[in-house]
Amino acid sequence: MIQNRSDIIVAPATPTGVSALAVIRVSGAGSIELVSKCFSKDLNEAEAYTIHYGHILDGKQRIDEVLVSVFRNPQSYTGEDSIEISGHGSPYVSQRIVETLTKVGARMAEAGEFTLRAFLNGKLDLAQAEAVADMISANSEASLKLAMDQMRGGFSKDIASLRQELVDFAALIELENDFGEEDVEFANRDHLKELIDKLLLKIEKLRSSFAAGNVLKHGINTVIAGKPNAGKSTLLNALLKEERAIVSDIAGTTRDTIEEVLNIKGIQFRLIDTAGLRQSGDQIEQIGVGKAKEKMEQAELLIYLCDLSSTNPSILEAELDQLPKTKEQIIIGNKVDQTDFDPEAWPENMIAVSAKSGNLSPLIDKLESIAANYESSNETVVNNIRHADALAKSAEALHKVTQGIDQGVTNDFVALDIRQSLHQLGLITGEVTNDEVLGSIFGRFCIGK
Amino acid sequence: MIQNRSDIIVAPATPTGVSALAVIRVSGAGSIELVSKCFSKDLNEAEAYTIHYGHILDGKQRIDEVLVSVFRNPQSYTGEDSIEISGHGSPYVSQRIVETLTKVGARMAEAGEFTLRAFLNGKLDLAQAEAVADMISANSEASLKLAMDQMRGGFSKDIASLRQELVDFAALIELENDFGEEDVEFANRDHLKELIDKLLLKIEKLRSSFAAGNVLKHGINTVIAGKPNAGKSTLLNALLKEERAIVSDIAGTTRDTIEEVLNIKGIQFRLIDTAGLRQSGDQIEQIGVGKAKEKMEQAELLIYLCDLSSTNPSILEAELDQLPKTKEQIIIGNKVDQTDFDPEAWPENMIAVSAKSGNLSPLIDKLESIAANYESSNETVVNNIRHADALAKSAEALHKVTQGIDQGVTNDFVALDIRQSLHQLGLITGEVTNDEVLGSIFGRFCIGK
Repeated sequence: MIQNRSDIIVAPATPTGVSALAVIRVSGAGSIELVSKCFSKDLNEAEAYTIHYGHILDGKQRIDEVLVSVFRNPQSYTGEDSIEISGHGSPYVSQRIVETLTKVGARMAEAGEFTLRAFLNGKLDLAQAEAVADMISANSEASLKLAMDQMRGGFSKDIASLRQELVDFAALIELENDFGEEDVEFANRDHLKELIDKLLLKIEKLRSSFAAGNVLKHGINTVIAGKPNAGKSTLLNALLKEERAIVSDIAGTTRDTIEEVLNIKGIQFRLIDTAGLRQSGDQIEQIGVGKAKEKMEQAELLIYLCDLSSTNPSILEAELDQLPKTKEQIIIGNKVDQTDFDPEAWPENMIAVSAKSGNLSPLIDKLESIAANYESSNETVVNNIRHADALAKSAEALHKVTQGIDQGVTNDFVALDIRQSLHQLGLITGEVTNDEVLGSIFGRFCIGK
Repeated sequence: MIQNRSDIIVAPATPTGVSALAVIRVSGAGSIELVSKCFSKDLNEAEAYTIHYGHILDGKQRIDEVLVSVFRNPQSYTGEDSIEISGHGSPYVSQRIVETLTKVGARMAEAGEFTLRAFLNGKLDLAQAEAVADMISANSEASLKLAMDQMRGGFSKDIASLRQELVDFAALIELENDFGEEDVEFANRDHLKELIDKLLLKIEKLRSSFAAGNVLKHGINTVIAGKPNAGKSTLLNALLKEERAIVSDIAGTTRDTIEEVLNIKGIQFRLIDTAGLRQSGDQIEQIGVGKAKEKMEQAELLIYLCDLSSTNPSILEAELDQLPKTKEQIIIGNKVDQTDFDPEAWPENMIAVSAKSGNLSPLIDKLESIAANYESSNETVVNNIRHADALAKSAEALHKVTQGIDQGVTNDFVALDIRQSLHQLGLITGEVTNDEVLGSIFGRFCIGK
């Protein structure tokens, strides 16, 4: 990718489908002039942020009756002169409009090319651009808030301030290098070490927020397991009925093996129902059990179900010992209504319910408290693996700086490690970048964004 | 349907799907004030046709970073104060925006309700409103042009001028009625009959354009038939490769049993491949042959294929005699390369080709000439069955007027028939209407239109 960055690009910006409206975007220096060539009015004198009614014309043929929005460099999404054409929501008509624009000199935009230009023109940094993609794929309150915060630049500001502190020190160290043999020391080594400790603390805090960020963005991978007939599917159905979500499922979301999504307090619990766990002569069933165990190991939250009416505390104890150590576990004693239940006899943290009755309040309360742990603080959260990786590498380089100072290595090496750390931080916001990185980030965007 | 027409309505106007942009429409008196309640800027002083950058807020929570377009009564699609919100193309985010607006007092719009309001506010008449729906489902050059012409009001003007001429006469006749017994004659009966003949001629011309209008809108129902192994599928594939279409197929278009669409000179040939025609002991195959015959009878164009290398002119002659009389027929002699072909021996109108070679120029030429018959003249074309029906009823009433005059019936009856004719014409443009008609027309629109 990374085509010519100065020509005029065009693309549909709304999904294909018969609908009320379809929007087509055009951007690039000269785009207003270009659209004027196939619009019933001259837009060249049109003011920024104004809307114009008219017709798209292919020669003399009227293609569509449209509204045209005019944006002018630099007050536009891309930072360039731009046009948005809002026409009738017919895929055929949209295609004809795009075709008409390409006839007069626009070219089809590549995926993410509008946002790429916004980045290249300094309208947003790389972390903000990535947040735009996150915003588009947001499917819960938490992922929406996360994307919105990152898009507003809070994270970028944190990274920039880390960088700035290092840059100042790097300048001093490199100044010493310029003096060569003279053995001056502008950069106080103790101060440098203090600074680095402070930066490492901040970086570690950001890195450790990645697990939470990942949950906010993608939800909690939740596995429901237990012996056959413990009531797993009944529980799942009852949970879904209790759901307090706005959206339980959004068309087009990739769900892989995920079977249901439960939305509690804005956090998605991605529920995976598993085959009942038992030894079986049936080979096919054993494969199912094997897969269940694998899923349990990958789970962030494991909901383990037992049937109180057909087991006893010591058997359950043995079963629990066999479970993989996931981050969170909830033990459910089901069918409490079918047995004389003595809470004293069972594990203290077990939640006793009757899934069949549909009253799952204690379980919902527990899930809500787990969701609350992730609740939006105003602190910056890392939710992007690329950023987490760069932070790790930046920290690694800083550790080397400290070691180097302690071991008395020459300035050159210290400066090199500082520069490496700066480089990694710069990758996050795109102050340092290359075509390959840009291609891989923007290539994942939608066409028209 | 036909809910309260004065409240503020909201609906997504673009298809659901992860995409660059999503547009949400709001309309109704007070809608600008209402959106201001959940927008980061006050829009109350905003000028019409201007765009405003900001955030949609649900209380203090930022839902999305958006552009808001402001339209003011009467210069808007609906003729009311209106807002279009262009946000990130996340179905979740769009839903949250709609939800936020309903919280502050908007209600979800019904299908077609924006256009219904446009009609009720006199922004367009009923025929034009129907053209909006046609525009959205346009899937060929011809259907696009047809919808565009009708949306611009050419057809409505024709109907209005027919009506006007009758209205003047109706007024004179009713004036006579007012004079009761006095036996005055303001409306010259011979002139009236002349006028009615003229109107009937115009109405008949419009009615007879319906067949062509239907083809322009829906395409030509084309059946390919012939004995087994005549090369029907080879022909179909070769035709599709030759296709000069911009769009061969549009996702979401209902295709029923249609198998392929060939787009020639802007006209859609909706190609239906059929089971080879032969007597067979196989029951299932006989059902297929039965269906093929049924489809042939419904066809507007029948392409009948024979294999020149395995038949002779007299057998073909006999086969052709069996064919149903469709509007257009094309006889193809296939596999011309596998036989010593003597044009003199075969029907004069037969086109000899080798479908396998892929050279189908003579057939394409023929299809182009059929398409050209429908080519856009500047004359008005009726393409809507509701309009064709109203025209037929209007003509029927006019015939009664003439008969009545000839039979010397009283003025009352003549006036009644004239009024009936006017009523039917008025139904087309919506000068006469009722909730049921409106409900059935607008109920078929998209949500958000």
